[in-house]
Amino acid sequence: MVPLNLLPDEKTADYIVTGEWAQYAYKELAKIGKKGNIAASSEADGFTHIPERSTWKLTNGAAYVHYTSNNTIYGTQFRELPDFGGSVAVCDMSSDFLSRPFDVTKFGVVYAGAQKNAGPAGATIVIIRKDLMEKPASKILPTMLNYKSIADKDSMLNTPPCYSIYICGLVFKWIENIGGLAKMDERNKKKAGFIYDAIDRSNGFYKGFAATRDRSLMNITFKLPSPELDEEFVKSAAAKDMIGLKGYRTVGGIRASVYNAHPLEGAEKLAQLMDEFCKSH
Amino acid sequence: MVPLNLLPDEKTADYIVTGEWAQYAYKELAKIGKKGNIAASSEADGFTHIPERSTWKLTNGAAYVHYTSNNTIYGTQFRELPDFGGSVAVCDMSSDFLSRPFDVTKFGVVYAGAQKNAGPAGATIVIIRKDLMEKPASKILPTMLNYKSIADKDSMLNTPPCYSIYICGLVFKWIENIGGLAKMDERNKKKAGFIYDAIDRSNGFYKGFAATRDRSLMNITFKLPSPELDEEFVKSAAAKDMIGLKGYRTVGGIRASVYNAHPLEGAEKLAQLMDEFCKSH
Repeated sequence: MVPLNLLPDEKTADYIVTGEWAQYAYKELAKIGKKGNIAASSEADGFTHIPERSTWKLTNGAAYVHYTSNNTIYGTQFRELPDFGGSVAVCDMSSDFLSRPFDVTKFGVVYAGAQKNAGPAGATIVIIRKDLMEKPASKILPTMLNYKSIADKDSMLNTPPCYSIYICGLVFKWIENIGGLAKMDERNKKKAGFIYDAIDRSNGFYKGFAATRDRSLMNITFKLPSPELDEEFVKSAAAKDMIGLKGYRTVGGIRASVYNAHPLEGAEKLAQLMDEFCKSH
Repeated sequence: MVPLNLLPDEKTADYIVTGEWAQYAYKELAKIGKKGNIAASSEADGFTHIPERSTWKLTNGAAYVHYTSNNTIYGTQFRELPDFGGSVAVCDMSSDFLSRPFDVTKFGVVYAGAQKNAGPAGATIVIIRKDLMEKPASKILPTMLNYKSIADKDSMLNTPPCYSIYICGLVFKWIENIGGLAKMDERNKKKAGFIYDAIDRSNGFYKGFAATRDRSLMNITFKLPSPELDEEFVKSAAAKDMIGLKGYRTVGGIRASVYNAHPLEGAEKLAQLMDEFCKSH
Protein backbone atom coordinates (compact mmCIF):
# COMPACT_ATOMS: atom_id res chain seq x y z
CA MET A 1 0.00 0.00 0.00
CA VAL A 2 2.85 2.42 0.77
CA PRO A 3 4.30 2.59 -2.78
CA LEU A 4 0.85 2.57 -4.40
CA ASN A 5 -0.10 5.61 -2.34
CA LEU A 6 3.21 7.45 -1.97
CA LEU A 7 5.47 6.55 -4.88
CA PRO A 8 4.78 8.07 -8.33
CA ASP A 9 5.86 5.82 -11.25
CA GLU A 10 8.59 8.24 -12.35
CA LYS A 11 10.20 8.55 -8.91
CA THR A 12 12.15 6.13 -6.75
CA ALA A 13 12.12 5.19 -3.08
CA ASP A 14 14.94 4.02 -0.79
CA TYR A 15 14.80 0.71 1.07
CA ILE A 16 16.93 -0.42 4.00
CA VAL A 17 17.00 -4.21 3.73
CA THR A 18 17.61 -5.81 7.12
CA GLY A 19 15.64 -9.06 6.88
CA GLU A 20 12.91 -11.01 5.13
CA TRP A 21 10.03 -8.58 5.64
CA ALA A 22 12.14 -5.61 4.58
CA GLN A 23 13.11 -7.56 1.48
CA TYR A 24 9.49 -8.50 0.69
CA ALA A 25 8.61 -4.82 0.86
CA TYR A 26 11.38 -3.98 -1.61
CA LYS A 27 10.59 -6.86 -3.99
CA GLU A 28 6.92 -5.90 -4.06
CA LEU A 29 7.84 -2.73 -5.99
CA ALA A 30 8.55 -4.67 -9.18
CA LYS A 31 5.16 -6.41 -8.95
CA ILE A 32 3.33 -3.11 -9.06
CA GLY A 33 5.45 -1.39 -11.69
CA LYS A 34 7.41 0.87 -9.33
CA LYS A 35 11.12 1.56 -9.00
CA GLY A 36 13.15 1.40 -5.81
CA ASN A 37 16.71 1.54 -4.60
CA ILE A 38 18.37 -0.56 -1.92
CA ALA A 39 20.06 2.20 0.06
CA ALA A 40 21.59 -0.27 2.52
CA SER A 41 21.47 -4.00 3.10
CA SER A 42 22.94 -6.51 5.52
CA GLU A 43 21.98 -9.49 3.36
CA ALA A 44 25.62 -10.29 2.48
CA ASP A 45 26.29 -10.74 6.21
CA GLY A 46 23.25 -12.97 6.71
CA PHE A 47 21.23 -10.13 8.24
CA THR A 48 23.21 -10.35 11.46
CA HIS A 49 23.22 -6.58 11.92
CA ILE A 50 21.64 -3.26 10.96
CA PRO A 51 23.74 -1.41 8.34
CA GLU A 52 25.46 1.53 9.97
CA ARG A 53 23.89 4.86 9.11
CA SER A 54 27.15 6.14 7.57
CA THR A 55 26.94 3.41 4.89
CA TRP A 56 23.41 4.25 3.69
CA LYS A 57 23.21 5.60 0.14
CA LEU A 58 20.02 7.64 0.17
CA THR A 59 18.73 8.95 -3.17
CA ASN A 60 18.24 12.65 -3.67
CA GLY A 61 14.56 13.30 -4.28
CA ALA A 62 13.38 9.82 -3.29
CA ALA A 63 9.69 9.67 -2.35
CA TYR A 64 10.57 8.06 0.99
CA VAL A 65 12.96 5.77 2.84
CA HIS A 66 11.43 2.49 4.06
CA TYR A 67 12.77 0.36 6.89
CA THR A 68 11.66 -2.39 9.25
CA SER A 69 12.33 -1.43 12.85
CA ASN A 70 12.59 -4.97 14.22
CA ASN A 71 13.50 -8.16 12.40
CA THR A 72 11.74 -11.09 14.03
CA ILE A 73 13.63 -13.86 12.24
CA TYR A 74 17.16 -12.56 12.83
CA GLY A 75 16.59 -10.84 16.14
CA THR A 76 17.95 -7.44 15.15
CA GLN A 77 16.39 -4.07 15.88
CA PHE A 78 16.98 -0.40 15.20
CA ARG A 79 17.67 0.49 18.83
CA GLU A 80 17.75 4.21 18.07
CA LEU A 81 15.74 6.27 15.61
CA PRO A 82 17.98 6.68 12.54
CA ASP A 83 18.70 10.06 10.96
CA PHE A 84 16.64 10.03 7.77
CA GLY A 85 18.59 12.87 6.16
CA GLY A 86 15.46 14.85 5.37
CA SER A 87 13.73 11.94 3.61
CA VAL A 88 10.17 10.97 4.46
CA ALA A 89 10.50 8.00 6.82
CA VAL A 90 8.22 4.99 6.35
CA CYS A 91 8.50 2.31 9.01
CA ASP A 92 7.14 -1.22 9.17
CA MET A 93 6.85 -1.32 12.95
CA SER A 94 4.86 -4.58 13.00
CA SER A 95 7.01 -6.39 15.51
CA ASP A 96 7.99 -3.62 17.95
CA PHE A 97 5.09 -1.17 17.77
CA LEU A 98 3.97 -0.27 21.33
CA SER A 99 7.10 -1.86 22.81
CA ARG A 100 8.72 1.54 23.52
CA PRO A 101 7.99 5.25 23.05
CA PHE A 102 8.74 6.77 19.64
CA ASP A 103 8.52 10.27 18.23
CA VAL A 104 5.67 9.99 15.76
CA THR A 105 6.44 13.42 14.28
CA LYS A 106 9.63 12.00 12.72
CA PHE A 107 7.65 9.66 10.46
CA GLY A 108 5.67 9.98 7.25
CA VAL A 109 4.05 6.56 7.70
CA VAL A 110 4.17 3.99 10.47
CA TYR A 111 2.35 0.72 9.90
CA ALA A 112 2.05 -2.33 12.11
CA GLY A 113 0.11 -5.58 11.99
CA ALA A 114 -1.69 -5.93 15.31
CA GLN A 115 -0.57 -9.47 16.04
CA LYS A 116 2.66 -8.87 17.96
CA ASN A 117 2.06 -6.24 20.65
CA ALA A 118 -1.36 -4.74 19.91
CA GLY A 119 -3.98 -7.47 19.61
CA PRO A 120 -5.24 -10.42 17.56
CA ALA A 121 -4.28 -10.82 13.89
CA GLY A 122 -6.68 -9.20 11.44
CA ALA A 123 -6.19 -5.50 12.12
CA THR A 124 -3.33 -3.35 10.86
CA ILE A 125 -2.60 0.04 12.39
CA VAL A 126 -1.48 2.85 10.08
CA ILE A 127 -0.31 6.29 11.22
CA ILE A 128 0.15 8.57 8.23
CA ARG A 129 0.90 12.26 7.79
CA LYS A 130 -2.25 13.82 6.33
CA ASP A 131 -0.51 15.60 3.46
CA LEU A 132 1.00 12.30 2.25
CA MET A 133 -2.36 10.72 1.56
CA GLU A 134 -4.10 13.72 -0.01
CA LYS A 135 -3.20 12.76 -3.56
CA PRO A 136 -2.44 9.07 -4.09
CA ALA A 137 0.57 8.51 -6.34
CA SER A 138 -0.98 5.76 -8.50
CA LYS A 139 -3.73 6.12 -11.06
CA ILE A 140 -4.50 2.42 -10.79
CA LEU A 141 -5.42 2.07 -7.15
CA PRO A 142 -8.14 -0.20 -5.76
CA THR A 143 -10.28 1.68 -3.23
CA MET A 144 -9.49 -0.87 -0.54
CA LEU A 145 -5.78 0.02 -0.83
CA ASN A 146 -6.32 3.79 -0.89
CA TYR A 147 -5.31 5.37 2.45
CA LYS A 148 -7.40 8.47 1.79
CA SER A 149 -10.55 6.50 0.94
CA ILE A 150 -10.17 4.52 4.16
CA ALA A 151 -9.44 7.62 6.28
CA ASP A 152 -12.36 9.52 4.72
CA LYS A 153 -14.67 6.78 5.99
CA ASP A 154 -13.11 6.71 9.48
CA SER A 155 -11.58 3.28 8.76
CA MET A 156 -15.04 1.85 8.07
CA LEU A 157 -14.95 1.71 4.28
CA ASN A 158 -15.82 -1.96 4.65
CA THR A 159 -17.02 -3.68 7.81
CA PRO A 160 -13.85 -3.52 9.94
CA PRO A 161 -12.43 -6.48 11.93
CA CYS A 162 -14.37 -5.45 15.05
CA TYR A 163 -13.08 -8.11 17.43
CA SER A 164 -9.41 -7.40 16.66
CA ILE A 165 -10.00 -3.66 17.06
CA TYR A 166 -11.88 -4.15 20.33
CA ILE A 167 -9.08 -6.24 21.83
CA CYS A 168 -6.48 -3.69 20.64
CA GLY A 169 -8.47 -1.10 22.61
CA LEU A 170 -8.23 -3.25 25.74
CA VAL A 171 -4.49 -3.68 25.18
CA PHE A 172 -4.04 0.11 24.84
CA LYS A 173 -5.77 0.53 28.21
CA TRP A 174 -3.61 -2.21 29.76
CA ILE A 175 -0.47 -0.40 28.56
CA GLU A 176 -1.73 2.90 29.97
CA ASN A 177 -2.53 1.25 33.30
CA ILE A 178 0.93 -0.28 33.49
CA GLY A 179 2.48 3.15 33.05
CA GLY A 180 2.55 3.75 29.31
CA LEU A 181 5.18 3.05 26.68
CA ALA A 182 8.11 4.26 28.81
CA LYS A 183 7.27 1.64 31.41
CA MET A 184 6.76 -0.97 28.69
CA ASP A 185 10.22 -0.16 27.32
CA GLU A 186 11.70 -0.55 30.81
CA ARG A 187 9.99 -3.96 31.21
CA ASN A 188 11.12 -5.10 27.76
CA LYS A 189 14.73 -4.08 28.42
CA LYS A 190 14.64 -6.01 31.68
CA LYS A 191 13.13 -9.11 30.03
CA ALA A 192 15.58 -9.19 27.13
CA GLY A 193 18.37 -8.32 29.58
CA PHE A 194 17.83 -11.56 31.54
CA ILE A 195 18.38 -13.62 28.40
CA TYR A 196 21.19 -11.60 26.82
CA ASP A 197 23.03 -11.65 30.16
CA ALA A 198 22.74 -15.45 30.21
CA ILE A 199 24.25 -15.54 26.70
CA ASP A 200 27.06 -13.19 27.68
CA ARG A 201 28.07 -15.01 30.87
CA SER A 202 28.11 -18.44 29.14
CA ASN A 203 31.71 -18.05 27.88
CA GLY A 204 30.66 -18.68 24.30
CA PHE A 205 28.42 -21.69 25.00
CA TYR A 206 25.50 -19.63 23.70
CA LYS A 207 26.36 -17.56 20.60
CA GLY A 208 24.08 -14.60 19.91
CA PHE A 209 23.10 -14.33 16.26
CA ALA A 210 22.70 -10.54 16.18
CA ALA A 211 25.52 -8.02 16.48
CA THR A 212 25.57 -6.82 20.09
CA ARG A 213 24.65 -3.20 19.33
CA ASP A 214 21.66 -4.26 17.19
CA ARG A 215 20.19 -6.84 19.56
CA SER A 216 16.40 -6.94 19.45
CA LEU A 217 14.40 -6.50 22.64
CA MET A 218 11.59 -8.53 21.09
CA ASN A 219 13.30 -11.59 19.59
CA ILE A 220 16.45 -13.03 21.07
CA THR A 221 18.31 -15.38 18.72
CA PHE A 222 21.23 -17.61 19.66
CA LYS A 223 22.85 -20.94 18.99
CA LEU A 224 24.32 -23.66 21.14
CA PRO A 225 27.58 -25.42 20.16
CA SER A 226 25.72 -27.93 17.92
CA PRO A 227 22.28 -28.43 16.33
CA GLU A 228 21.92 -31.51 18.57
CA LEU A 229 22.38 -29.34 21.66
CA ASP A 230 19.93 -26.78 20.20
CA GLU A 231 17.38 -29.57 20.01
CA GLU A 232 18.12 -30.85 23.47
CA PHE A 233 17.79 -27.33 24.86
CA VAL A 234 14.38 -26.88 23.19
CA LYS A 235 13.26 -30.16 24.79
CA SER A 236 14.56 -29.16 28.24
CA ALA A 237 12.68 -25.88 27.97
CA ALA A 238 9.47 -27.63 26.87
CA ALA A 239 9.74 -29.87 29.93
CA LYS A 240 9.55 -26.67 31.99
CA ASP A 241 6.55 -25.33 29.98
CA MET A 242 8.60 -22.97 27.82
CA ILE A 243 7.63 -23.55 24.19
CA GLY A 244 8.04 -21.94 20.77
CA LEU A 245 11.80 -21.64 21.21
CA LYS A 246 12.93 -23.29 17.98
CA GLY A 247 14.58 -20.74 15.68
CA TYR A 248 13.17 -19.89 12.24
CA ARG A 249 14.16 -22.56 9.69
CA THR A 250 16.48 -20.28 7.69
CA VAL A 251 18.44 -19.31 10.82
CA GLY A 252 18.20 -22.36 13.06
CA GLY A 253 19.21 -22.32 16.72
CA ILE A 254 16.95 -20.79 19.35
CA ARG A 255 14.60 -17.82 19.18
CA ALA A 256 13.02 -16.45 22.34
CA SER A 257 10.25 -13.97 21.55
CA VAL A 258 9.42 -11.72 24.47
CA TYR A 259 6.71 -9.39 23.18
CA ASN A 260 4.85 -7.03 25.52
CA ALA A 261 2.50 -9.78 26.71
CA HIS A 262 5.35 -12.05 27.80
CA PRO A 263 5.80 -11.87 31.59
CA LEU A 264 9.08 -10.88 33.26
CA GLU A 265 9.05 -14.20 35.10
CA GLY A 266 9.08 -16.14 31.83
CA ALA A 267 12.28 -14.44 30.69
CA GLU A 268 13.89 -14.91 34.10
CA LYS A 269 12.98 -18.60 34.08
CA LEU A 270 14.48 -19.08 30.62
CA ALA A 271 17.71 -17.38 31.73
CA GLN A 272 17.90 -19.73 34.72
CA LEU A 273 17.48 -22.75 32.46
CA MET A 274 20.22 -21.37 30.19
CA ASP A 275 22.62 -21.12 33.14
CA GLU A 276 21.80 -24.65 34.33
CA PHE A 277 21.97 -26.15 30.83
CA CYS A 278 25.32 -24.47 30.17
CA LYS A 279 26.75 -25.77 33.44
CA SER A 280 25.53 -29.35 32.87
CA HIS A 281 26.72 -29.51 29.24
CA MET B 1 -9.66 -8.44 -6.53
CA VAL B 2 -11.92 -10.16 -9.09
CA PRO B 3 -11.16 -7.84 -12.04
CA LEU B 4 -7.46 -7.56 -11.11
CA ASN B 5 -7.16 -11.34 -11.25
CA LEU B 6 -9.71 -12.28 -13.95
CA LEU B 7 -10.16 -9.35 -16.32
CA PRO B 8 -7.43 -8.55 -18.87
CA ASP B 9 -7.21 -4.84 -19.78
CA GLU B 10 -8.35 -5.45 -23.36
CA LYS B 11 -11.45 -7.47 -22.42
CA THR B 12 -14.71 -6.51 -20.74
CA ALA B 13 -16.85 -8.02 -18.00
CA ASP B 14 -20.61 -7.94 -17.46
CA TYR B 15 -22.17 -6.56 -14.28
CA ILE B 16 -25.73 -7.04 -13.04
CA VAL B 17 -26.42 -3.95 -10.94
CA THR B 18 -29.06 -4.64 -8.30
CA GLY B 19 -28.00 -2.41 -5.42
CA GLU B 20 -25.22 -0.43 -3.79
CA TRP B 21 -22.66 -3.21 -3.40
CA ALA B 22 -23.20 -4.39 -6.97
CA GLN B 23 -22.71 -0.82 -8.12
CA TYR B 24 -19.54 -0.36 -6.07
CA ALA B 25 -18.16 -3.48 -7.73
CA TYR B 26 -18.92 -2.04 -11.18
CA LYS B 27 -17.59 1.45 -10.38
CA GLU B 28 -14.36 -0.02 -9.03
CA LEU B 29 -13.40 -1.08 -12.58
CA ALA B 30 -12.69 2.50 -13.65
CA LYS B 31 -10.39 2.99 -10.64
CA ILE B 32 -8.16 0.14 -11.70
CA GLY B 33 -8.12 0.88 -15.45
CA LYS B 34 -10.52 -1.89 -16.47
CA LYS B 35 -13.59 -1.88 -18.71
CA GLY B 36 -17.00 -3.25 -17.84
CA ASN B 37 -20.52 -3.37 -19.15
CA ILE B 38 -23.75 -3.04 -17.18
CA ALA B 39 -25.62 -6.00 -18.63
CA ALA B 40 -28.71 -5.29 -16.52
CA SER B 41 -29.70 -2.81 -13.83
CA SER B 42 -32.71 -2.04 -11.69
CA GLU B 43 -31.36 1.36 -10.61
CA ALA B 44 -34.03 3.27 -12.59
CA ASP B 45 -36.67 1.49 -10.48
CA GLY B 46 -34.88 2.25 -7.21
CA PHE B 47 -33.48 -1.28 -6.98
CA THR B 48 -36.88 -2.68 -6.00
CA HIS B 49 -36.37 -5.83 -8.03
CA ILE B 50 -33.88 -8.12 -9.78
CA PRO B 51 -33.81 -7.49 -13.56
CA GLU B 52 -35.51 -10.40 -15.34
CA ARG B 53 -33.08 -12.74 -17.01
CA SER B 54 -34.66 -12.10 -20.44
CA THR B 55 -33.61 -8.42 -20.24
CA TRP B 56 -29.90 -9.08 -19.54
CA LYS B 57 -27.55 -8.02 -22.34
CA LEU B 58 -24.54 -10.25 -21.85
CA THR B 59 -21.42 -9.49 -23.90
CA ASN B 60 -19.99 -12.12 -26.18
CA GLY B 61 -16.51 -13.00 -24.94
CA ALA B 62 -16.82 -11.18 -21.62
CA ALA B 63 -14.33 -12.41 -19.00
CA TYR B 64 -17.17 -13.04 -16.55
CA VAL B 65 -20.59 -11.89 -15.36
CA HIS B 66 -20.67 -10.45 -11.83
CA TYR B 67 -23.72 -10.25 -9.61
CA THR B 68 -24.64 -9.81 -5.95
CA SER B 69 -26.93 -12.60 -4.81
CA ASN B 70 -28.60 -10.68 -1.98
CA ASN B 71 -29.02 -6.92 -1.58
CA THR B 72 -29.06 -6.04 2.11
CA ILE B 73 -30.20 -2.44 1.74
CA TYR B 74 -33.14 -3.06 -0.61
CA GLY B 75 -34.11 -6.52 0.57
CA THR B 76 -33.98 -8.23 -2.79
CA GLN B 77 -32.40 -11.57 -3.59
CA PHE B 78 -31.77 -13.84 -6.53
CA ARG B 79 -34.09 -16.60 -5.33
CA GLU B 80 -33.00 -18.98 -8.09
CA LEU B 81 -29.62 -19.49 -9.70
CA PRO B 82 -29.70 -17.46 -12.94
CA ASP B 83 -28.75 -18.94 -16.30
CA PHE B 84 -25.36 -17.37 -17.04
CA GLY B 85 -25.53 -18.19 -20.77
CA GLY B 86 -22.14 -19.87 -20.75
CA SER B 87 -20.36 -16.93 -19.08
CA VAL B 88 -18.12 -17.45 -16.07
CA ALA B 89 -20.27 -16.55 -13.06
CA VAL B 90 -18.79 -14.43 -10.29
CA CYS B 91 -20.98 -13.93 -7.26
CA ASP B 92 -20.66 -11.60 -4.30
CA MET B 93 -22.46 -13.89 -1.86
CA SER B 94 -21.53 -11.84 1.23
CA SER B 95 -25.03 -11.54 2.64
CA ASP B 96 -26.57 -14.92 1.87
CA PHE B 97 -23.59 -17.30 1.82
CA LEU B 98 -24.40 -20.38 3.97
CA SER B 99 -28.09 -19.42 4.11
CA ARG B 100 -29.08 -22.11 1.57
CA PRO B 101 -27.49 -24.83 -0.56
CA PHE B 102 -25.96 -23.77 -3.88
CA ASP B 103 -24.31 -25.63 -6.71
CA VAL B 104 -20.71 -24.51 -6.45
CA THR B 105 -19.84 -26.07 -9.83
CA LYS B 106 -21.90 -23.38 -11.58
CA PHE B 107 -19.54 -20.63 -10.42
CA GLY B 108 -16.14 -19.32 -11.43
CA VAL B 109 -15.76 -17.32 -8.22
CA VAL B 110 -17.87 -17.00 -5.09
CA TYR B 111 -16.73 -14.53 -2.46
CA ALA B 112 -18.31 -13.60 0.85
CA GLY B 113 -17.35 -11.45 3.80
CA ALA B 114 -17.72 -13.57 6.93
CA GLN B 115 -19.74 -11.06 8.91
CA LYS B 116 -23.31 -12.02 7.94
CA ASN B 117 -23.70 -15.78 8.22
CA ALA B 118 -20.22 -17.21 8.71
CA GLY B 119 -18.47 -15.48 11.59
CA PRO B 120 -16.95 -12.23 12.89
CA ALA B 121 -15.86 -9.50 10.47
CA GLY B 122 -12.26 -9.75 9.34
CA ALA B 123 -12.25 -12.89 7.22
CA THR B 124 -13.47 -13.18 3.64
CA ILE B 125 -14.18 -16.56 2.08
CA VAL B 126 -13.27 -17.07 -1.58
CA ILE B 127 -14.13 -20.16 -3.64
CA ILE B 128 -12.42 -19.99 -7.02
CA ARG B 129 -12.05 -22.39 -9.92
CA LYS B 130 -8.37 -23.35 -10.03
CA ASP B 131 -7.89 -22.59 -13.74
CA LEU B 132 -9.15 -19.03 -13.24
CA MET B 133 -6.35 -18.11 -10.88
CA GLU B 134 -3.50 -19.81 -12.67
CA LYS B 135 -2.50 -16.71 -14.65
CA PRO B 136 -3.60 -13.40 -13.11
CA ALA B 137 -4.99 -10.98 -15.69
CA SER B 138 -3.11 -7.89 -14.47
CA LYS B 139 0.60 -7.19 -14.67
CA ILE B 140 0.32 -4.67 -11.88
CA LEU B 141 -0.97 -6.79 -9.04
CA PRO B 142 0.03 -6.45 -5.39
CA THR B 143 0.82 -9.88 -3.91
CA MET B 144 -1.81 -9.40 -1.21
CA LEU B 145 -4.50 -9.15 -3.92
CA ASN B 146 -3.24 -12.11 -5.96
CA TYR B 147 -5.53 -15.14 -5.51
CA LYS B 148 -2.82 -17.55 -6.65
CA SER B 149 -0.20 -16.15 -4.27
CA ILE B 150 -2.65 -16.53 -1.39
CA ALA B 151 -3.74 -20.05 -2.43
CA ASP B 152 -0.13 -21.16 -2.92
CA LYS B 153 0.51 -20.29 0.73
CA ASP B 154 -2.65 -22.05 1.98
CA SER B 155 -4.22 -18.67 2.80
CA MET B 156 -1.33 -17.87 5.15
CA LEU B 157 0.60 -15.44 2.96
CA ASN B 158 0.36 -13.04 5.89
CA THR B 159 -0.70 -13.90 9.43
CA PRO B 160 -4.40 -14.65 8.87
CA PRO B 161 -7.23 -13.31 11.07
CA CYS B 162 -7.12 -16.40 13.29
CA TYR B 163 -9.98 -15.53 15.61
CA SER B 164 -12.43 -14.87 12.76
CA ILE B 165 -11.39 -18.09 11.05
CA TYR B 166 -11.71 -20.08 14.27
CA ILE B 167 -15.23 -18.81 14.91
CA CYS B 168 -16.19 -19.52 11.26
CA GLY B 169 -15.10 -23.11 11.92
CA LEU B 170 -17.42 -23.30 14.93
CA VAL B 171 -20.27 -21.86 12.83
CA PHE B 172 -19.67 -24.47 10.10
CA LYS B 173 -19.98 -27.19 12.75
CA TRP B 174 -23.14 -25.58 14.14
CA ILE B 175 -24.70 -25.59 10.66
CA GLU B 176 -23.74 -29.23 10.16
CA ASN B 177 -25.20 -30.15 13.54
CA ILE B 178 -28.46 -28.38 12.70
CA GLY B 179 -28.79 -30.45 9.53
CA GLY B 180 -26.72 -28.60 6.95
CA LEU B 181 -27.58 -25.92 4.42
CA ALA B 182 -30.88 -27.54 3.34
CA LYS B 183 -32.13 -27.30 6.93
CA MET B 184 -30.78 -23.74 7.18
CA ASP B 185 -32.72 -22.81 4.04
CA GLU B 186 -35.88 -24.32 5.53
CA ARG B 187 -35.39 -22.30 8.75
CA ASN B 188 -34.69 -19.12 6.83
CA LYS B 189 -37.79 -19.54 4.66
CA LYS B 190 -39.87 -20.06 7.78
CA LYS B 191 -38.40 -17.00 9.52
CA ALA B 192 -38.84 -14.66 6.55
CA GLY B 193 -42.27 -16.24 5.96
CA PHE B 194 -43.53 -15.06 9.37
CA ILE B 195 -42.71 -11.46 8.51
CA TYR B 196 -43.74 -11.45 4.84
CA ASP B 197 -47.06 -13.05 5.84
CA ALA B 198 -47.63 -10.22 8.34
CA ILE B 199 -47.00 -7.72 5.54
CA ASP B 200 -49.34 -9.52 3.18
CA ARG B 201 -52.26 -9.85 5.62
CA SER B 202 -52.07 -6.16 6.66
CA ASN B 203 -54.24 -4.94 3.76
CA GLY B 204 -51.58 -2.51 2.59
CA PHE B 205 -50.74 -1.08 6.04
CA TYR B 206 -47.23 -2.51 5.57
CA LYS B 207 -45.86 -2.03 2.06
CA GLY B 208 -43.02 -4.36 1.08
CA PHE B 209 -40.17 -2.56 -0.70
CA ALA B 210 -39.06 -5.49 -2.85
CA ALA B 211 -41.00 -7.02 -5.73
CA THR B 212 -42.72 -10.13 -4.37
CA ARG B 213 -40.83 -12.64 -6.52
CA ASP B 214 -37.44 -11.13 -5.54
CA ARG B 215 -38.05 -10.92 -1.80
CA SER B 216 -34.91 -11.56 0.24
CA LEU B 217 -34.92 -14.24 2.92
CA MET B 218 -32.18 -12.33 4.75
CA ASN B 219 -33.40 -8.72 4.83
CA ILE B 220 -37.09 -7.86 4.88
CA THR B 221 -37.78 -4.25 3.95
CA PHE B 222 -41.14 -2.50 4.28
CA LYS B 223 -42.78 0.82 5.05
CA LEU B 224 -45.71 1.91 7.18
CA PRO B 225 -48.18 4.53 5.93
CA SER B 226 -45.96 7.44 7.14
CA PRO B 227 -42.39 8.09 8.36
CA GLU B 228 -43.92 8.99 11.75
CA LEU B 229 -45.52 5.56 11.99
CA ASP B 230 -42.23 3.95 10.89
CA GLU B 231 -40.59 5.67 13.83
CA GLU B 232 -43.33 4.71 16.26
CA PHE B 233 -43.10 1.10 15.10
CA VAL B 234 -39.32 1.04 15.68
CA LYS B 235 -39.94 2.35 19.22
CA SER B 236 -42.65 -0.23 19.93
CA ALA B 237 -40.31 -2.98 18.78
CA ALA B 238 -37.45 -1.64 20.92
CA ALA B 239 -39.78 -1.72 23.95
CA LYS B 240 -40.07 -5.48 23.30
CA ASP B 241 -36.28 -5.90 22.92
CA MET B 242 -36.31 -5.97 19.11
CA ILE B 243 -33.69 -3.54 17.87
CA GLY B 244 -31.85 -2.61 14.66
CA LEU B 245 -35.10 -2.31 12.70
CA LYS B 246 -34.62 1.15 11.20
CA GLY B 247 -34.24 0.94 7.42
CA TYR B 248 -31.06 2.08 5.67
CA ARG B 249 -31.02 5.87 5.29
CA THR B 250 -31.39 5.87 1.49
CA VAL B 251 -34.48 3.62 1.65
CA GLY B 252 -36.12 4.54 4.95
CA GLY B 253 -38.89 2.47 6.51
CA ILE B 254 -38.15 -0.76 8.33
CA ARG B 255 -35.53 -3.43 7.68
CA ALA B 256 -35.64 -6.72 9.54
CA SER B 257 -32.46 -8.73 9.06
CA VAL B 258 -32.88 -12.40 9.84
CA TYR B 259 -29.50 -13.95 9.11
CA ASN B 260 -28.76 -17.57 10.05
CA ALA B 261 -28.04 -16.68 13.68
CA HIS B 262 -31.40 -15.00 14.17
CA PRO B 263 -33.77 -17.36 16.04
CA LEU B 264 -37.15 -18.45 14.67
CA GLU B 265 -38.80 -17.03 17.78
CA GLY B 266 -37.48 -13.54 17.03
CA ALA B 267 -39.12 -13.50 13.60
CA GLU B 268 -42.37 -14.86 15.03
CA LYS B 269 -42.37 -12.22 17.78
CA LEU B 270 -41.84 -9.44 15.23
CA ALA B 271 -44.73 -10.73 13.10
CA GLN B 272 -46.97 -10.71 16.19
CA LEU B 273 -46.01 -7.11 16.93
CA MET B 274 -46.75 -6.21 13.29
CA ASP B 275 -50.24 -7.69 13.59
CA GLU B 276 -50.94 -5.85 16.86
CA PHE B 277 -49.50 -2.55 15.66
CA CYS B 278 -51.53 -2.74 12.45
CA LYS B 279 -54.74 -3.41 14.39
CA SER B 280 -54.13 -0.57 16.88
CA HIS B 281 -53.17 1.99 14.23
